[in-house]
Amino acid sequence: MPQYNPPLRDMQFVMHEVLNIVDELKQCPKHADIDADTINAVLEEGGKFAAEVLAPLNLSGDAEGCALDKTTHEVTPPKGFKEAYAKYVEGGWPALGCDPEYGGQGLPLVVNQSFYEMMNSANQAWTMYPGLSHGAYECLHAHGTPEQQATYLPKLTSGEWTGTMCLTEPHCGTDLGMLRTKAVPQADGTYKITGAKIFISAGEHNMVENIIHLVLARLPDAPEGSKGISLFVVPKFLVNADGSLGPRNGIFCAGLEHKMGIHANSTCQMVLEDAVGTLVGQPNKGLAAMFVMMNAARLGVGNQSLGLTEVAYQNAAAYAKDRIQMRALSGPKAPEKAADPIIVHPDVRKMLLTARAYAEGGRALSTYVAVTLDKALASDDEDERKAADDEVALLTPIIKAFITDNGWIATSHCMQVFGGHGFIHEWGMEQFVRDARINMIYEGTNTIQSLDLLGRKILGDNGAKLKKFGKKIAAFVEEEGTNEAMQEFINPLADLGDKVTKLTTEIGMKAFQNPDEVGAAAVDYLRVVGHLTFAYFWARMAKVALEKQASGDKFYTAKLSTARFYFAKLLPETATLIRTARAGLQPLMEMDEALF
Amino acid sequence: MPQYNPPLRDMQFVMHEVLNIVDELKQCPKHADIDADTINAVLEEGGKFAAEVLAPLNLSGDAEGCALDKTTHEVTPPKGFKEAYAKYVEGGWPALGCDPEYGGQGLPLVVNQSFYEMMNSANQAWTMYPGLSHGAYECLHAHGTPEQQATYLPKLTSGEWTGTMCLTEPHCGTDLGMLRTKAVPQADGTYKITGAKIFISAGEHNMVENIIHLVLARLPDAPEGSKGISLFVVPKFLVNADGSLGPRNGIFCAGLEHKMGIHANSTCQMVLEDAVGTLVGQPNKGLAAMFVMMNAARLGVGNQSLGLTEVAYQNAAAYAKDRIQMRALSGPKAPEKAADPIIVHPDVRKMLLTARAYAEGGRALSTYVAVTLDKALASDDEDERKAADDEVALLTPIIKAFITDNGWIATSHCMQVFGGHGFIHEWGMEQFVRDARINMIYEGTNTIQSLDLLGRKILGDNGAKLKKFGKKIAAFVEEEGTNEAMQEFINPLADLGDKVTKLTTEIGMKAFQNPDEVGAAAVDYLRVVGHLTFAYFWARMAKVALEKQASGDKFYTAKLSTARFYFAKLLPETATLIRTARAGLQPLMEMDEALF
Repeated sequence: MPQYNPPLRDMQFVMHEVLNIVDELKQCPKHADIDADTINAVLEEGGKFAAEVLAPLNLSGDAEGCALDKTTHEVTPPKGFKEAYAKYVEGGWPALGCDPEYGGQGLPLVVNQSFYEMMNSANQAWTMYPGLSHGAYECLHAHGTPEQQATYLPKLTSGEWTGTMCLTEPHCGTDLGMLRTKAVPQADGTYKITGAKIFISAGEHNMVENIIHLVLARLPDAPEGSKGISLFVVPKFLVNADGSLGPRNGIFCAGLEHKMGIHANSTCQMVLEDAVGTLVGQPNKGLAAMFVMMNAARLGVGNQSLGLTEVAYQNAAAYAKDRIQMRALSGPKAPEKAADPIIVHPDVRKMLLTARAYAEGGRALSTYVAVTLDKALASDDEDERKAADDEVALLTPIIKAFITDNGWIATSHCMQVFGGHGFIHEWGMEQFVRDARINMIYEGTNTIQSLDLLGRKILGDNGAKLKKFGKKIAAFVEEEGTNEAMQEFINPLADLGDKVTKLTTEIGMKAFQNPDEVGAAAVDYLRVVGHLTFAYFWARMAKVALEKQASGDKFYTAKLSTARFYFAKLLPETATLIRTARAGLQPLMEMDEALF
Repeated sequence: MPQYNPPLRDMQFVMHEVLNIVDELKQCPKHADIDADTINAVLEEGGKFAAEVLAPLNLSGDAEGCALDKTTHEVTPPKGFKEAYAKYVEGGWPALGCDPEYGGQGLPLVVNQSFYEMMNSANQAWTMYPGLSHGAYECLHAHGTPEQQATYLPKLTSGEWTGTMCLTEPHCGTDLGMLRTKAVPQADGTYKITGAKIFISAGEHNMVENIIHLVLARLPDAPEGSKGISLFVVPKFLVNADGSLGPRNGIFCAGLEHKMGIHANSTCQMVLEDAVGTLVGQPNKGLAAMFVMMNAARLGVGNQSLGLTEVAYQNAAAYAKDRIQMRALSGPKAPEKAADPIIVHPDVRKMLLTARAYAEGGRALSTYVAVTLDKALASDDEDERKAADDEVALLTPIIKAFITDNGWIATSHCMQVFGGHGFIHEWGMEQFVRDARINMIYEGTNTIQSLDLLGRKILGDNGAKLKKFGKKIAAFVEEEGTNEAMQEFINPLADLGDKVTKLTTEIGMKAFQNPDEVGAAAVDYLRVVGHLTFAYFWARMAKVALEKQASGDKFYTAKLSTARFYFAKLLPETATLIRTARAGLQPLMEMDEALF
């Protein structure tokens, strides 16, 4: 069974030594009292919960899966899941980042995110039960009526109830404008909602008393397409005025999907039959309200793959040091043993370091974006909030797509380190690969992310957001320009920055001629910009490591070696990506559809 | 459920229009009577068997898996598998490429391989039952005593019995020199064999009366390491002198592995307790004898991923033409529908064309190598046999590693085309991905393949084999040098040829200093040479397509478009690979083992 050690040292390094998040957070009045010791203590306890309670249930949960009782429509998650959830609630963990007004602890999102990274490492399928709740919480917090907030937020905050997002229908996922679920207004101000939803994560389970569904549906007089979609809150059990549970509502799980991975999460087909709901936000403005959830969910999905990359790395590294097989080509390294540990083989190290560099780079980027989101939400300076918001908007699709694509590569490499054993369930490595695969699909496929980045976030404002972020990179390059020891990191970073500027202009020009050029270049382009952000954070981490390596703490030595690996072996992927992005639309569209 | 259409037209194009395999085969006396019509007719019938008998069992076989009865040690494969195998035997398919002396049909291997491609597309897990037999057949055919051949080959040829390869043990896979299974000589000339083997594909099942295991074990006085390994044939039931079945032998399935994919194939833990076996070949020369199986198996594994790439492509292309979602960025393409079919989106086409170009390129390379193997085995010219043998040796690790890595990329892309549905079992796409994953591992991991290519096959003979193959490429480049229409294919091919020469020399020089440099560069290097071979065959296919496109047959138009896609979007991967291969050993070895 895989092991998991919470990477607290690396989290602290990123938070306190590289990003100085405490100083950043203190600019926000509501976080004025935050300090590093509090953050570290919370994460230490959170890490224990992840490693001791959740990790032991990951393999067994995958093997067992969820069970649906077709008569009661009740779903039973795998053994131990309900008990783990009870501990989660008992520990107060659901409230970590929630609003004190509703019983939350009001800690910064950046702390909650690192806690989630650890839970994702330990058990992605379990973590999706509370994870989806968080989306429902955010959405009601931003758009709910005072009554809705009073009814639902305290229970979501305490974790007594969980939440879902009901968007997808059989015929529409990406294209929500096509959805058909109907909401009919009633005399009492509620709506009766009828339709069929699919792929509803944590849609039904017995771990809590009530499940709060956020449902997209169409009003009778709604305009066609995405401008006619409204958002409703539909509880599994109706809630009486005194807060007690009323009758069972007409929203049922009609089937569970059999999936490649995340077996332990109940992925439900939900049927709504005159289910009673109340409107969230304005009529026909449901998509915008839903996007509050969606952006948080996209960051959350990147975080899932970050967690999987970390845990896959840890287990592969341990195996590579333990498993003996063959001798090094350069001669025996462990002559006292029957063979050398496989970590002596350069390609085994390459696979391990790929995962490590992607995990640590992803952690730096994700932590940076999380603290920026804290500023976007809570800074007392409006300009600062706006600037932070723009930066989060720019970097969200990169976190979603780049980190999940990297997670797929990394977990597959880590599995490969195990040879044939990697393919066998009991070692747990193949589960990381299967679980990682969904992260490239849900909450907007990675192709959708790349269109969002290039089309909307970059070309859509003439590159303004990218330029602002580019200025931060340029300032860092300038600052370190005379630092001899930093040249190996700064030069390729500066070079890639120039190339991104050129490439962006070039694609922008082509897109004037034919907007499909954006679609042809977007996926390659996103990975190029992903590498630019990773190169930036790797250079910043290297700077700190260089300054501190004299301390003798080997943590910094390892950090520097991983940084060098990143620049030597991973960043060069951009050489290909820039060429293929440039190759443009013609080779993709030349073939007639009928000939496929 | 996925559909499968045997790609007969493309097979015929490669065989008869590009490679002229009939002319090549006629140089071999035993294939002097072969003709294109016979080959086409066999493949047409074989395609029907694959599509009509095997394909319908793929999804259900994956869901059901195999069952072991722990008291009888018998394994029951999924429903329908036994009946399908009976049809396979009834149709005479096992005998296709086998020696007429033992009841075989004596058809060229290239025909058998294309038949296997189709069976792999339809059902990789099922196909491994007869597939492993073929390895046992080859090994006994090459190294068995006349008695062993008379006893086993007719039954393996008819398919009445199947075979296995028992190599791996819990503590050794790649490093077979460490194996511990013991063989003790008996007075009657047999051996009693005791030990534990793992990962034995098709190790036990009820589809045939007897299973013939080829087992690596160690004689009592054997030298240590790989020079002390002998090969034995160990039947499940002993065979009486009259050919009837005798007592049950001491070789049992002790457990089935729970795996990521190929669920329907029984991957067995085999226990040998004083199992009676006879020696195959010379004592202590078992590894060499086993390598006859191994090389065939490596080509077979490449062929598995070729099959999966093809079938994944077919289903993704059909889905992309059918599924409507969003509008093209350049405006509606199917205004009469609620949305455009997703094939209008450039990145969907990129994913599809990646799979298509890898399937068609892989088919050309594999077919070329198979017909070359026919020449290596059956040419009446010794020089020709030697030259063919060298070329097969060079290209085998490329087929194994490059085609299986491509298969992983391609099946994952094809699954992505389905969005969320791709993650769901019933669509069948995620099974292709899971099944494809093992192909990168077994029969020598892809890292082992790359070391075999660069270390043994290329640097081991100072590049002689590579130079010979390079001369074929150079001759083609020269020949087409003045053909204007071919420049878009010839120029990048020639350029990559030059780069491979330079890169090979460079790594060779570094390896003199430190042999670990080979290990650091090998995986990237193999993909570079893989692209060189694909570029060569794509250029040859483009040449034929250019010549024939005036016929109006749209097959040639599609071939040319796919060729252009390959050169524009896939070949540029070499830009990165050459850089990372060059980055060498230092970034991999810098970090101390303890810091991982």
